[in-house]
Amino acid sequence: MTDDSIDQGFFKQHISHQFNEELEDIHTRVLAMGGIVEQQLTDAVSAMVDGNRELAQTVITSDYKVNSLEVELDEACTHVLVRRQPTASDLRLVMAVVKTITDLERIGDEAERIGRMALYLLEEDRAVAPVAEMGAFGSHVRDMLRGALDAVARMDAEHAVRVAQQDIQADSQYEVVLQRLMDQMKKSPETIPRLMDIVWAARSMERIGDRARNICEYVVYFVRGKDVRHTSFDQMAREATGDRG
Amino acid sequence: MTDDSIDQGFFKQHISHQFNEELEDIHTRVLAMGGIVEQQLTDAVSAMVDGNRELAQTVITSDYKVNSLEVELDEACTHVLVRRQPTASDLRLVMAVVKTITDLERIGDEAERIGRMALYLLEEDRAVAPVAEMGAFGSHVRDMLRGALDAVARMDAEHAVRVAQQDIQADSQYEVVLQRLMDQMKKSPETIPRLMDIVWAARSMERIGDRARNICEYVVYFVRGKDVRHTSFDQMAREATGDRG
Repeated sequence: MTDDSIDQGFFKQHISHQFNEELEDIHTRVLAMGGIVEQQLTDAVSAMVDGNRELAQTVITSDYKVNSLEVELDEACTHVLVRRQPTASDLRLVMAVVKTITDLERIGDEAERIGRMALYLLEEDRAVAPVAEMGAFGSHVRDMLRGALDAVARMDAEHAVRVAQQDIQADSQYEVVLQRLMDQMKKSPETIPRLMDIVWAARSMERIGDRARNICEYVVYFVRGKDVRHTSFDQMAREATGDRG
Repeated sequence: MTDDSIDQGFFKQHISHQFNEELEDIHTRVLAMGGIVEQQLTDAVSAMVDGNRELAQTVITSDYKVNSLEVELDEACTHVLVRRQPTASDLRLVMAVVKTITDLERIGDEAERIGRMALYLLEEDRAVAPVAEMGAFGSHVRDMLRGALDAVARMDAEHAVRVAQQDIQADSQYEVVLQRLMDQMKKSPETIPRLMDIVWAARSMERIGDRARNICEYVVYFVRGKDVRHTSFDQMAREATGDRG
């Protein structure tokens, strides 16, 4: 925990007790939404890697929950903007939440896509050698999401930067998985449609890594008031630690 | 033009002349950003379909412009929130803009990806039969983006619904292109890596269609005050025309 974390009384700083509660409530609900999405991703990766049909179905049917949480939280943020007219870090918190929930909802969509691909694969009879690296890749991306949500929970900018940097490894794991899949396609062209389903699942995992990184960028924006999208990891790290040199 | 359009004096309704100007300025800049992204997409599709190397390079090098417009517009929206504390339709306009620019930026990223794939294809010597349906698919998706931007320009909810519905056709065009590519892979496995680049380009086009549809949903939200994400096209159409029955 660094000095940048949100637990230093952020939600007690307003004269209005109710305003404190409203902001804290939004923060809590974002984390709850994140928890559901994280579970979706865990289930989707298990469904894909271990061939678990029940988990695949659970992921697909639970997406509506994430969708309605997104709409509810958007409304809650809009209400705070109207009633409280927040400024400075309060406003940044609301704006960071508005953006975070969009990425969380899209991560849920990608998890649903992975679950759907797992189900297609299970429905077919043809056997295909699984790609060994897929499990490690899925775990890494899930760890990134968990790390991003930890950074949101504590609003810890330095932790956010460390998590964002893990996207480099995710991208290279993705390239390895893709290469293995193409090698298999060349060897057994009759398995191409089936392998393409695994390609889509891998692509979804790669996108989830990107979105976890987006969430980390919003944390840095909230804590430091600095927009670090479209900057390098080095630049992002300097902003997160407050070192502008 | 319907009664829902923004040209009925929306930007003249505030007592503060400067507030009118600020909102109009944000609206104009979103459209300018949209124009750049639309050009990127047009160039990317030409680069991919006609094999135009120069256009591919133009798309790749112009992405920074879109990125900085996104950051600038986000800041402009935050300033309006702080200084003007907008409510009702003003607030909805700002929130719709915040979401629209995120999708526009990501459409720019997808266009850049298409340009990059076109460049990879041009750098290789191996000849591959092009997929005839790719050109029509690219044009359709570009028309969707243009339509979505028209809906933003006029803030026309009914037009937005018509454009969103075109995503059904985009999805089926995508399936056809994908099937053709997989057929070619099976026939000539040695071309798989090259064909995978075309698969990614097709996937990017499909995602651009999804994002154009998102933008249409924000227009309905602004005009009607109703969040139509995660609803059916029929439901969306009823909300856009104000028919709740």
